[in-house]
Amino acid sequence: MAHIDLGNDLPGIRGPMAFRPETAKPLNELAEILLRDDDNTLSRGERELIGAYVSSLNDCFFCQNVHGGLAQYYMQCDMPFIDAIKRDPMATSLSGKMKALLVIAGKVQASGKAVTAADVAAAREQGATDREIHDAVLIAAAFCMFNRYVDGLGTWAPQDRQYYVNRAPQRAAEGYIDFDLYK
Amino acid sequence: MAHIDLGNDLPGIRGPMAFRPETAKPLNELAEILLRDDDNTLSRGERELIGAYVSSLNDCFFCQNVHGGLAQYYMQCDMPFIDAIKRDPMATSLSGKMKALLVIAGKVQASGKAVTAADVAAAREQGATDREIHDAVLIAAAFCMFNRYVDGLGTWAPQDRQYYVNRAPQRAAEGYIDFDLYK
Repeated sequence: MAHIDLGNDLPGIRGPMAFRPETAKPLNELAEILLRDDDNTLSRGERELIGAYVSSLNDCFFCQNVHGGLAQYYMQCDMPFIDAIKRDPMATSLSGKMKALLVIAGKVQASGKAVTAADVAAAREQGATDREIHDAVLIAAAFCMFNRYVDGLGTWAPQDRQYYVNRAPQRAAEGYIDFDLYK
Repeated sequence: MAHIDLGNDLPGIRGPMAFRPETAKPLNELAEILLRDDDNTLSRGERELIGAYVSSLNDCFFCQNVHGGLAQYYMQCDMPFIDAIKRDPMATSLSGKMKALLVIAGKVQASGKAVTAADVAAAREQGATDREIHDAVLIAAAFCMFNRYVDGLGTWAPQDRQYYVNRAPQRAAEGYIDFDLYK
């Protein structure tokens, strides 16, 4: 049960978003632009993967499964591959660019100040543009917010991970602007 | 110098916001509703104080001074009082409710999961409503994003703290919707 009376029994971030739609609106708009907008050289799958990875580092069950589910859907892989990335991105078949961006995202999760010029140079060497580096930093930072919002209010989450995989196609189609995103 | 070429020399969060106005828009809308909207039983000063406190815990110089400057302006106190709160809120003359909300905000800064039912019960005993507890959690979570965005991209910040105090009245008047917030 959530720490406050949300007036609904919706899972994860949906509960506080329905409780406070005024703040849900810009939160969802941010997610839509960062994760789903087509004007981006990072694929939707790559962006969802950054969110899932950071959510895993923050140990947020709901977010890592919602966004891990979306990543596997967009990337046409499976959850064991997403889980392998969460455990150790460097040991997977991800591109050098994605590995370098996940290093930056992992540093951001720990602290913005942990990101070094060398981390950024390494991403550039792998072909990352400044815009891609910017977006990786902001996606990682945004999930440090979303994860804390979900867990700081003690929301509940379905424990069956297949639930998230099953719902990914619908969520991918509907996007983040609709407040019913996480249904 | 920032880690990426922002195409401008604006300080702090203004640099990446000008670089990527598409994401700046919802970020500023979130700040406006959370920190400045009049439909809130927490004062603007109390909300800015939560942001300044969390920014201090995250060691983000730019954010703790922008929002500490705004807090002292709204609260009609001075920066030494804000600094005393950042060092140890419990040792100050803040209300019991604000102290309890800052305990929750500090837990959120460490990890959403660090917030306990007892922390929330203590805030309620001091008169905090569920909406106030919600907003304290989301403000703290949002600053965990803003701080990482500012420092993860290696932005620069004016080092003279008086700069932020001097600019607080104008920022308070203009609000967060205008992209020129941090000028």
